[in-house]
Amino acid sequence: MRDRKARQSSEGSVLHFTDSADPGSFLEGRAPSRPFLGGVVWDCGHEGPWPSTGFSLEGRAPSRPSSEGGGRVRRLDEIDRFFNPRTVALVGVSRHFGFGHGLPGFFARIGLADRVFPVNPNIEEIQGLKVYPSVRAIPCEIDLACVLVPAPSVPEVLSDCIAAGVRAVIVMSAGFAETGAEGRRRQEALAAMARRAGVRLMGPNCIGVVNVPARFATCEILIEDMNPGTISIVAQSGVFGNILMDAAPSMGIAVSKVATIGNRADLDETDLLEYLAEDPATAVIVLYLESIRRGRAFLDAARRASQRKPVLAFLGGQTEAGRRATQSHTGSMAGFGQLEKALVRQAGLWIARDPVELLETARAFALSPPMRGPRVFVVTASGSLGVMAADRLVEEGLDLAEPSGPGFQRLRDKAPPWMNLGNPLDVGPSGLFAEGAAAALEHPDADAVILIPVIPWAVVSPLLEADRLSVAAMFGPRRSEACGAAPAKPVIVCPQGHPGWKGACVDLYGPQTPFASTPQAAATALAALYRYWRRRS
Amino acid sequence: MRDRKARQSSEGSVLHFTDSADPGSFLEGRAPSRPFLGGVVWDCGHEGPWPSTGFSLEGRAPSRPSSEGGGRVRRLDEIDRFFNPRTVALVGVSRHFGFGHGLPGFFARIGLADRVFPVNPNIEEIQGLKVYPSVRAIPCEIDLACVLVPAPSVPEVLSDCIAAGVRAVIVMSAGFAETGAEGRRRQEALAAMARRAGVRLMGPNCIGVVNVPARFATCEILIEDMNPGTISIVAQSGVFGNILMDAAPSMGIAVSKVATIGNRADLDETDLLEYLAEDPATAVIVLYLESIRRGRAFLDAARRASQRKPVLAFLGGQTEAGRRATQSHTGSMAGFGQLEKALVRQAGLWIARDPVELLETARAFALSPPMRGPRVFVVTASGSLGVMAADRLVEEGLDLAEPSGPGFQRLRDKAPPWMNLGNPLDVGPSGLFAEGAAAALEHPDADAVILIPVIPWAVVSPLLEADRLSVAAMFGPRRSEACGAAPAKPVIVCPQGHPGWKGACVDLYGPQTPFASTPQAAATALAALYRYWRRRS
Repeated sequence: MRDRKARQSSEGSVLHFTDSADPGSFLEGRAPSRPFLGGVVWDCGHEGPWPSTGFSLEGRAPSRPSSEGGGRVRRLDEIDRFFNPRTVALVGVSRHFGFGHGLPGFFARIGLADRVFPVNPNIEEIQGLKVYPSVRAIPCEIDLACVLVPAPSVPEVLSDCIAAGVRAVIVMSAGFAETGAEGRRRQEALAAMARRAGVRLMGPNCIGVVNVPARFATCEILIEDMNPGTISIVAQSGVFGNILMDAAPSMGIAVSKVATIGNRADLDETDLLEYLAEDPATAVIVLYLESIRRGRAFLDAARRASQRKPVLAFLGGQTEAGRRATQSHTGSMAGFGQLEKALVRQAGLWIARDPVELLETARAFALSPPMRGPRVFVVTASGSLGVMAADRLVEEGLDLAEPSGPGFQRLRDKAPPWMNLGNPLDVGPSGLFAEGAAAALEHPDADAVILIPVIPWAVVSPLLEADRLSVAAMFGPRRSEACGAAPAKPVIVCPQGHPGWKGACVDLYGPQTPFASTPQAAATALAALYRYWRRRS
Repeated sequence: MRDRKARQSSEGSVLHFTDSADPGSFLEGRAPSRPFLGGVVWDCGHEGPWPSTGFSLEGRAPSRPSSEGGGRVRRLDEIDRFFNPRTVALVGVSRHFGFGHGLPGFFARIGLADRVFPVNPNIEEIQGLKVYPSVRAIPCEIDLACVLVPAPSVPEVLSDCIAAGVRAVIVMSAGFAETGAEGRRRQEALAAMARRAGVRLMGPNCIGVVNVPARFATCEILIEDMNPGTISIVAQSGVFGNILMDAAPSMGIAVSKVATIGNRADLDETDLLEYLAEDPATAVIVLYLESIRRGRAFLDAARRASQRKPVLAFLGGQTEAGRRATQSHTGSMAGFGQLEKALVRQAGLWIARDPVELLETARAFALSPPMRGPRVFVVTASGSLGVMAADRLVEEGLDLAEPSGPGFQRLRDKAPPWMNLGNPLDVGPSGLFAEGAAAALEHPDADAVILIPVIPWAVVSPLLEADRLSVAAMFGPRRSEACGAAPAKPVIVCPQGHPGWKGACVDLYGPQTPFASTPQAAATALAALYRYWRRRS
């Protein structure tokens, strides 16, 4: 893949860099006054002035030993308590409508009625559950406390939690660093209190966690509608995490864990990344970040994590306006410029341009085998959509495989005279989509396949309804038939047109197939797969 | 908006250019051997070697007079016959399943039974309609002939059409320039025959036209499901045109006319662009092109058309692989590099990156008033999504308006302490989305508004069902209430999360509101509006 060189002027400095993920990438220039960058460079042992040339993370000692020693394991256990608590205190329940109002009932609905303990000194019962006057009054050990009280009361609640021996606390309340200097002081005091007591804290300004396979969540979502999967998500924003969960089932996204880390008074993206890298239930990690709190530690963790599983990121705050918005959103001080993005890519992460691209690519990673090379074969029933896939594949640095192999020989015998046997293979109205797909799937030199099944819906839907036409015969073979239970190469399907046709394709290709919303999205997802697996090899 | 400068190496030449739409843009370098470019430069009166510096279309004489004289009006009338024929011959109907098989029944279904005349010398009746042995045998005047016969028989059919006085012919059959040299010769012979006889020809290798308000189409689509609108589409590809029609209703795209021009033996994108620029039923023109047949004439037509209405384009074949694919798709000889795109932008067109962006932006143009300046206000219930909108707005060259005006004064009085009254305005769970939207809509310095209404679906959906919560009260005001029947500024709504919520938002904001699939898409659409209206002003 070509290096993409760019120039950037940042507060008087001119920086030259590449965003290549290749070892040997370089970074040179003078220091911009951005905390993440400065932190990264000085954290890695560089001394003296900002390096004028040839700076790279390659070959630098990690910021701390990546040992599997006791400290690390303890830290991971501490985080696991957030996702798998035996008992939960819910502090600040209220009969008034507002944020968190429905949580007691939600916990009861997901089967935790006898393991959740609402707290409020002023009421005795809520949504059928007994309410305790304080965390200390709960008659059993509490694994996790979720705190909903207004910001000024949070320190007192934390103090209660500490006294009651709670080791994991989610502070959902807003009103901390995101509101300005006073809130920041309040947040730092809270973090110091937790640190002294050895309590791990998530938030403030978040909605906590989701663990789909365990059917556990600290926020009201339709967890019963969600398919457990292997994609885990870390989002600074609580609302964004919630929206992703709401959108996931309709996008075919099967999730394992979600953590919303909010203002990150204590636990941050680096902690969660380390946890999820070790988590056997997580195959793909997705990050939504508005800044990186500990630059060098994060890049080291990212490098280690992406040697084990793909890590995908969306970085909010890439412009001055975006940065100001992140500051009032989660109290983040620094945003992401081209240079920060280059460092994140060097550490092995893939960066999405929008949330749809983020989730579609995550799904492609979760459902695809490794991609062994850059050559893609495109089978389409629309020439235009094939052109779109080809353009984007090349723009993304991938190649198109030449048609060859016995499948194409069979096709040549059957093809009508107007049909061109190229790549993209545009089968048009020949009825040979299934044969074309089979030829691409068994093509020895194609490292991945994009299938673009399209039909004129008004023509085909009555035939489908009358059962006069087998969709499978026209557009199969089913991926499982063609490739065995474990497909040998990534296949992304991109049905276009009528919603009824898209639904029919989900039935035809099965829930384990990655789908893309456009030919461009399919090509971009394959480029991400290729980059990732090339780095791993 | 900043100029974006780029460099491109093309077959040994280095070219410097900008893609700015501003007058005074320049283009310098040595000639690449690409037909579109060469044609453009020499067409506009330049003589001698490839210009070494300072070449621009600005100030050049148009390639032909842009008069409203008799020739021009006659040409437009000729094209109108394709969209509004009184009678249609359908040549090559067949009882065998295949391309066009269902067309006789389709014409009957859309109410044309007594105005459509199937032709096939071997059968006497099809799908309830009498079949004629030849076009000459039809006992009335034929406005439009649609030809489905195999390529080798097309000349004979065209000859019959000419003899019968038919003036407009759509050749749907494939097997011409897209198949190679022999096909290209066949196509040129066809075009010459039509030209000699004064017959206009659409295709070959296409599916003809759609006229939604007239409920007329020459291809089988669910025209009864389609809302008539003001977006008209020219697509080189027949299948792509069909797919757009299938997807349009579910995307809220209301279409006026569609023309699929295929291999363009006669009528091409420039003819259709001139026609649609004059067409009172068309407010927005969308082009899908894989090459431009008459470079200079097209750019002149584009410049004239975009002074009257927005013209949006998707250009297929931007890479070598894409170009090869366009050649086997529609016989297009040249593709689009950076330089061709720069010329197209200079002529006033906006270029989309994928089909979703193309259609969402077309919808924003069709439903929005002019955008008078670059300042946008973003109201969101999710900080993250606000950050995304802000980042993309700035990347696209727009600005964020500072909060001001009486609406924000009212908000300040009501806002809880944790809420930041910035732009993006993140109302979080304050319940103040409606007030925030109203403040943005009446903001004197905001030239456009992005609204990002989100909710936790599990919390809100039971309340909506139980009618205990008025969505309008939470997320209104309805745009029509806030802005009168004709809104004063563009407003794009970007609901995110559960499909049920997106549906609720369509109900709330109404079918006349532009929606975007991501905050990024909303920002990109506004940037297109701003660029367009700045140029028009």
